Amino acid sequence: MTPPPTHTHAAIVSIGDELSLGQNLDTNSRWIAEQLSILGIMTLEHVTIGDDQADTARTFARLAERTGLVISTGGLGPTLDDLTRQALADILGEPLITDADALRDLETRFTSRGRTLSEIQKIQACRPASARMIPNPNGTAPGVHAVVPTPRSTFPHADIFCLPGPPGEMKPMFAASVVPALRPAPGRTVRVRFIHMTGVGEGDAAAALGPLMDRNRVPLVGITASGGVLTCRIRYEGPLPPDAVDALIEETAVEIRRAIGPHIFGEGGLSLVGAILNELVSRAATLATVESCTGGMLGQLITDVAGSSAAYVGGFVSYANEFKTELVGVDPVTIAQHGAVSEATAREMAIGGLRLTSASYALSITGVAGPGGGTAMKPVGTVFIGLASRAAPDQAVVRRFFMPGPRDDVRRRAVTSALSMLLFTLRNPGARMRLLWEQG
Amino acid sequence: MTPPPTHTHAAIVSIGDELSLGQNLDTNSRWIAEQLSILGIMTLEHVTIGDDQADTARTFARLAERTGLVISTGGLGPTLDDLTRQALADILGEPLITDADALRDLETRFTSRGRTLSEIQKIQACRPASARMIPNPNGTAPGVHAVVPTPRSTFPHADIFCLPGPPGEMKPMFAASVVPALRPAPGRTVRVRFIHMTGVGEGDAAAALGPLMDRNRVPLVGITASGGVLTCRIRYEGPLPPDAVDALIEETAVEIRRAIGPHIFGEGGLSLVGAILNELVSRAATLATVESCTGGMLGQLITDVAGSSAAYVGGFVSYANEFKTELVGVDPVTIAQHGAVSEATAREMAIGGLRLTSASYALSITGVAGPGGGTAMKPVGTVFIGLASRAAPDQAVVRRFFMPGPRDDVRRRAVTSALSMLLFTLRNPGARMRLLWEQG
Repeated sequence: MTPPPTHTHAAIVSIGDELSLGQNLDTNSRWIAEQLSILGIMTLEHVTIGDDQADTARTFARLAERTGLVISTGGLGPTLDDLTRQALADILGEPLITDADALRDLETRFTSRGRTLSEIQKIQACRPASARMIPNPNGTAPGVHAVVPTPRSTFPHADIFCLPGPPGEMKPMFAASVVPALRPAPGRTVRVRFIHMTGVGEGDAAAALGPLMDRNRVPLVGITASGGVLTCRIRYEGPLPPDAVDALIEETAVEIRRAIGPHIFGEGGLSLVGAILNELVSRAATLATVESCTGGMLGQLITDVAGSSAAYVGGFVSYANEFKTELVGVDPVTIAQHGAVSEATAREMAIGGLRLTSASYALSITGVAGPGGGTAMKPVGTVFIGLASRAAPDQAVVRRFFMPGPRDDVRRRAVTSALSMLLFTLRNPGARMRLLWEQG
Repeated sequence: MTPPPTHTHAAIVSIGDELSLGQNLDTNSRWIAEQLSILGIMTLEHVTIGDDQADTARTFARLAERTGLVISTGGLGPTLDDLTRQALADILGEPLITDADALRDLETRFTSRGRTLSEIQKIQACRPASARMIPNPNGTAPGVHAVVPTPRSTFPHADIFCLPGPPGEMKPMFAASVVPALRPAPGRTVRVRFIHMTGVGEGDAAAALGPLMDRNRVPLVGITASGGVLTCRIRYEGPLPPDAVDALIEETAVEIRRAIGPHIFGEGGLSLVGAILNELVSRAATLATVESCTGGMLGQLITDVAGSSAAYVGGFVSYANEFKTELVGVDPVTIAQHGAVSEATAREMAIGGLRLTSASYALSITGVAGPGGGTAMKPVGTVFIGLASRAAPDQAVVRRFFMPGPRDDVRRRAVTSALSMLLFTLRNPGARMRLLWEQG
């Protein structure tokens, strides 16, 4: 059988009761869609289903007809609720056979670790007769690639790639074995460009963009909010040559920059943390953090970026009040008079971060993340963010925010707002820009 | 029109180009599926699609026929790429009308903040003629609830609830307005029970469980791995009365506990952090953390749990070496001789955590998270975890691990392993239990 001549669209399927029942969060689909988008292949649909053979087969068949390219994760493990291979065999109308090479690899993997291969594990060396195995260097379950007939489509066949669920296994397999097998469309151009902004609400940004967001516009402009960062998406898909598309997209980007102004902090894969690290590194400056209600989330987000050690010295998770006073140097009188969640405490936390480390800047966060702990004067969601700089350590700036939503949202928004505050200060030292969720 | 008599199954739809294209991660579907599961409603399918009116209408219609209950998020904002209302109107064959109450609420919300309602914002007060609005106390976009015909199903109509995408708005609306409108099945029992284990691999757990995982078994047993925590899921759906089902599930739970033993740390909604906090609080003990490669992730995970302040005093993100030596008290000679990623450094970090704080226990993590920084002797993924206790501060224990996968996996697995190590030590102080990914 021959696969479809080109891959222009795709669908992604995540398989597992733990996902459909909401016990675990699927992060694979997002990652795969992003990778496909880079290749110019548009993902039309992600589907998550349980460990059900008939449902898997039905979903594979529907999406193969719709898109010509289906990538699944999950259901390839050794246990009896792993049924992806069987579903693939069902739509092919073929038996499962044992792949001799895969079985040998599996045996080698087990014996080299002093373990013996159990019967239950051997299912991982099976595939539908016409399919091929996809090697898995980081785990026991290989993937499977099959070409299935699509009689109701304009193309005669579709590719289905089945990968295991653990991201540490799936991602290297996708890069090494799926990407080289894909055939993005010739003669067709797909481009997506992202422009990121922070400290501004979605409605205000949309009002500023106005007719740029018309649904019939080419290229299309969309907007999305995620935890305080807003992203404008400029997207083109059509017959124009790449150069013309790039020019068209650049024209739109210019209009967006004109409409939004200094709230824009970067483009493409640049995160808010990445923008800050660039600013810090370019002036040989460093950062320390002093966190209370966010409990390490700010440090974690910064150190998510490999290479953050160039500008991040470290931080304090001053969760208990004694930690704030004894280790960060907040005056116990300040906490007694103003409370741990106060402008004064945030200021002393930031100044303490500077005094204790060699950092050029120190960011502090203290707030009421909830669900308990709120008062009439300081309801759940109240957060104070402090920023002190080595150049003028006594002039630490503190801003008060009200973050809507439950505990996790309050914490995430506090972290984003702290990063926004630092970035605006680095880029526009004189200006006073009001931030989203800022009070007073 | 009358809705279906009962809701036994559901489907969840997430709408937005930013989700289908993989720019953002959808966390709403997981949360909704979990809430429905608690109510005894099984989610059969989650679908993510782009900002496309026809695709939204088609997906709503298909899933309404399949399950009788569809809950969507996204596409209700004020911008031109928000098309969920229009799609709902399409399958109903009705026009969009302006809801007078919703328009008044929207105007009040804007004027009370000194802003004027723009024309573009007014679309948020629109709904299909037969639908009703779902109030949104935390944002501008109300939800919409419609009853749609399902001519190809055994039930005559289905419920579709459309909610906005931001989790801080969606979750309170789901709790306040969707849950009271649901009708879980009478005469049918659905029960899911979760048993969590840590420090053991999926293959080994499956081998230990053996025939308990048979696909025809009642109740059904499944197993899932997520970042080092393994969860056994016991699920029943059928006509037996609740008492009989509970007894049946308890019998299975006993067999699972017998097969897996001390690797089991808890059940239900209890997380690894929750189990640790319970152990600490019950003995009036506290914890401090000293993190290097995880950069605050351990502290963040602990403080994710509201009430963690009862047992968590705080911690240090000793990312730079100077932070380790000057603020945590690691001997510079130790780092020079053994490296920042070493057993000796992990030991001194843990002991420093004890010395600097009042905590009963201190956990330390230092490792090579990658992608750079690996050597032949300490490749990317090498992590040392230290645990010191106030009872015997000089006898800190350090274990060496090799965490597979990319940076984020290494960090997550390091955090889980540190928590596992602490929990096993608290529960089985004498025993020496080998943990997943442990080396040597």
